[in-house]
Amino acid sequence: MNDANDIRPLNLEGGAPDLTGLTAIENGGVTSAKGFKAAGVHAGFRKNPERFDLALLVADEPAACAATFTQNVFCAAPVTVSREHLDGVSYGTARAFVVNSGTANAATGSVGIESAKRTAEIVGEVVGCPASEVMVASTGVIGVQLNMATFETGVPMAYDALSEDGGAAAARAIMTTDTHPKECAFSFSGDEIGYPGATFTIGGMAKGSGMIMPNMATMISGITTDAPVTPDVLHAALKQAVANSFNKVTVDSDTSTNDCCFLFASGAAAPGAEPFQPGSPALAAFQHALDAVCGTLARAMAADGEGATRLITVRVAGAANDAQADIAARTIANSPLVKTAIFGHDANWGRIAGAVGRSGADFNQEDVSIDIMGLPVMRAGLPVPFSEEEALRRFERPEIDIDVDLGAGTARTVMWTCDFSYEYVTINGDYRT
Amino acid sequence: MNDANDIRPLNLEGGAPDLTGLTAIENGGVTSAKGFKAAGVHAGFRKNPERFDLALLVADEPAACAATFTQNVFCAAPVTVSREHLDGVSYGTARAFVVNSGTANAATGSVGIESAKRTAEIVGEVVGCPASEVMVASTGVIGVQLNMATFETGVPMAYDALSEDGGAAAARAIMTTDTHPKECAFSFSGDEIGYPGATFTIGGMAKGSGMIMPNMATMISGITTDAPVTPDVLHAALKQAVANSFNKVTVDSDTSTNDCCFLFASGAAAPGAEPFQPGSPALAAFQHALDAVCGTLARAMAADGEGATRLITVRVAGAANDAQADIAARTIANSPLVKTAIFGHDANWGRIAGAVGRSGADFNQEDVSIDIMGLPVMRAGLPVPFSEEEALRRFERPEIDIDVDLGAGTARTVMWTCDFSYEYVTINGDYRT
Repeated sequence: MNDANDIRPLNLEGGAPDLTGLTAIENGGVTSAKGFKAAGVHAGFRKNPERFDLALLVADEPAACAATFTQNVFCAAPVTVSREHLDGVSYGTARAFVVNSGTANAATGSVGIESAKRTAEIVGEVVGCPASEVMVASTGVIGVQLNMATFETGVPMAYDALSEDGGAAAARAIMTTDTHPKECAFSFSGDEIGYPGATFTIGGMAKGSGMIMPNMATMISGITTDAPVTPDVLHAALKQAVANSFNKVTVDSDTSTNDCCFLFASGAAAPGAEPFQPGSPALAAFQHALDAVCGTLARAMAADGEGATRLITVRVAGAANDAQADIAARTIANSPLVKTAIFGHDANWGRIAGAVGRSGADFNQEDVSIDIMGLPVMRAGLPVPFSEEEALRRFERPEIDIDVDLGAGTARTVMWTCDFSYEYVTINGDYRT
Repeated sequence: MNDANDIRPLNLEGGAPDLTGLTAIENGGVTSAKGFKAAGVHAGFRKNPERFDLALLVADEPAACAATFTQNVFCAAPVTVSREHLDGVSYGTARAFVVNSGTANAATGSVGIESAKRTAEIVGEVVGCPASEVMVASTGVIGVQLNMATFETGVPMAYDALSEDGGAAAARAIMTTDTHPKECAFSFSGDEIGYPGATFTIGGMAKGSGMIMPNMATMISGITTDAPVTPDVLHAALKQAVANSFNKVTVDSDTSTNDCCFLFASGAAAPGAEPFQPGSPALAAFQHALDAVCGTLARAMAADGEGATRLITVRVAGAANDAQADIAARTIANSPLVKTAIFGHDANWGRIAGAVGRSGADFNQEDVSIDIMGLPVMRAGLPVPFSEEEALRRFERPEIDIDVDLGAGTARTVMWTCDFSYEYVTINGDYRT
């Protein structure tokens, strides 16, 4: 039970990734970790010759690989084929990762499956590895078949362009309506975790949150590390990191048909060393850095949501359990009424209360506290007077925090979304008229 | 399994209410049924003196009454009090129904509960009945206490204005951002159902789909009938009608704190007659007419959604069970991507496929068929070529049909929503800046 007279800010924790002990690498990305080269080129999937549309990532040696895939029943052909290449268990060994933008290869039937398989073969031939060691991903228009001739000419071009500085080009090549590329990399020392002298790096790229015509299939992320991690352990770490990052992002509640996240581990930072063991300090440090990479990319994705003017961080505490914390935060983050209010710089706590009230989470309304941008606006289920002037000042911040304490338990979560603007309607409704 | 080569339109049924055997009453509403008087007046909850803000409905004699209430945990004080007046079982006996617009009496704590109780007392004193026979409802701004002096002066004013033609004024008095009042009434003959010579009428008013500042608590409906129905039977009939009408409307996925629907039965069309019995042809005819009233009001609510330019009817067939049909239709109807596409006159089947794919309904993508406005756009999970010109022509219709057959079973449902326009963002985001 919250006290109506206690109107100190909730100050819920969480939001920005915890970077303790990590070193951010300037302009870091998917080639920051040792053992990987990448390229981004214009192959011809898009008409604009200035626009990169094919990304290739190649590991010097076969790397451990883990992935997470969209849950959408209408999953795209490359998702099906990549999952098969990982023996259906979403982890294994891989040499290469190829992504085209412009065409999603979703809703393309058996022809689409053959195209995705052939793409892997083309890459395998050029790189010199089995097709089963190639991960494929596509993003772009749904319901259109891939132009395979573009792969036949584009993959060798990308292979020739591979470099240890190619991460930035690769990150540009996977963009659709993203307004800027999304990359980051962090390193951590092996000294205190049983790998003296070694420095491990995790870096990644992501694209997301854009749809243009008729339906851009959205989130794709590729992450590399030079830490020694076996595929099964890598998969467990990735699942945990994705659950707390990409899966906590919602731009418009629409899950794409093509969502996928791939993590490749070369082990090149400590050749011949024992892989990180479950329960070890090394794996804990790795998880911490992986969480930072995924969290950074996920927040960048939410902030660059279609038409977004503000990143919104929704923190829910005091839920009865994790599932209820999630559904409460998700309902707030998906509410068009909340998102348009933020766009209009309106500290509209009534809509936030309405959203958690209908979310399905169990609580009593007289136990609820809400803060917006650190301003207490509801205590014990009743409105708290606040300065509208101060609220308008805080709305100038690029990041808007919504904190809710349900007063029903100890579970908590964080989600990221963006506001809902005219530009969203323009991007998604207006382009044909 | 659907055949990819069979591209005849799906022609799924449902959408407009079935009016077979019913007589629509011109300008009909909440006073069309015998035994009820109503009024709408300007009491002073709103500043504009031209705007009605207090509706009063009074039955000549105590009437059977049934109600359905919002599931939102942040339910408003009048919801709590009306439910208490119906002995907590949502049905009983009532003489009067009072609704104010302008103030929602939600998030108002114990003071709000006392205000709702006092409102019922004021009406009871004027009408001459126990406060427990008064149903109360409020709509308007959340978090503001009711002005009780306005009730003290307004209720006698409304009582003096009561008339058998007062339905239209009452329907106007409950409006918030609605652009027009919503009323209808239908009658049916008792001749073939064991009540020879009698004509029964059901009529209702509703408001909905509007939020203005800081949060208008939305859907309220009052329905009357002169058929003889006991409270428990009335409640069962109302629950069924609401499930297939108001509960199938979504404007923006946000369930209000104040939603309620009240149904009053005077029995005045057949005084002294045996009440309609469960399983009887009379009750079946009553249910049919009640479904028509609720369906008509629900569609009007969706069509008048905030910023709406089109009514959208989503029909899902071939689902494995009712719950899956509902979640598939609901996910399409709530998708901002689908709603902005309709606003942009874009027959964007990819977004519809994406929405059902993430809805949680079980199906195989190669079994799915989709039509938009009767145009086949997907068969067997693959796109079907269609004339963009013909699609643009059909987008001129005021009502847009989306038909989806999941090919996974026999369950089906219908939902209503509206498109998502710039005006929605203006109404909900822009009014403070």
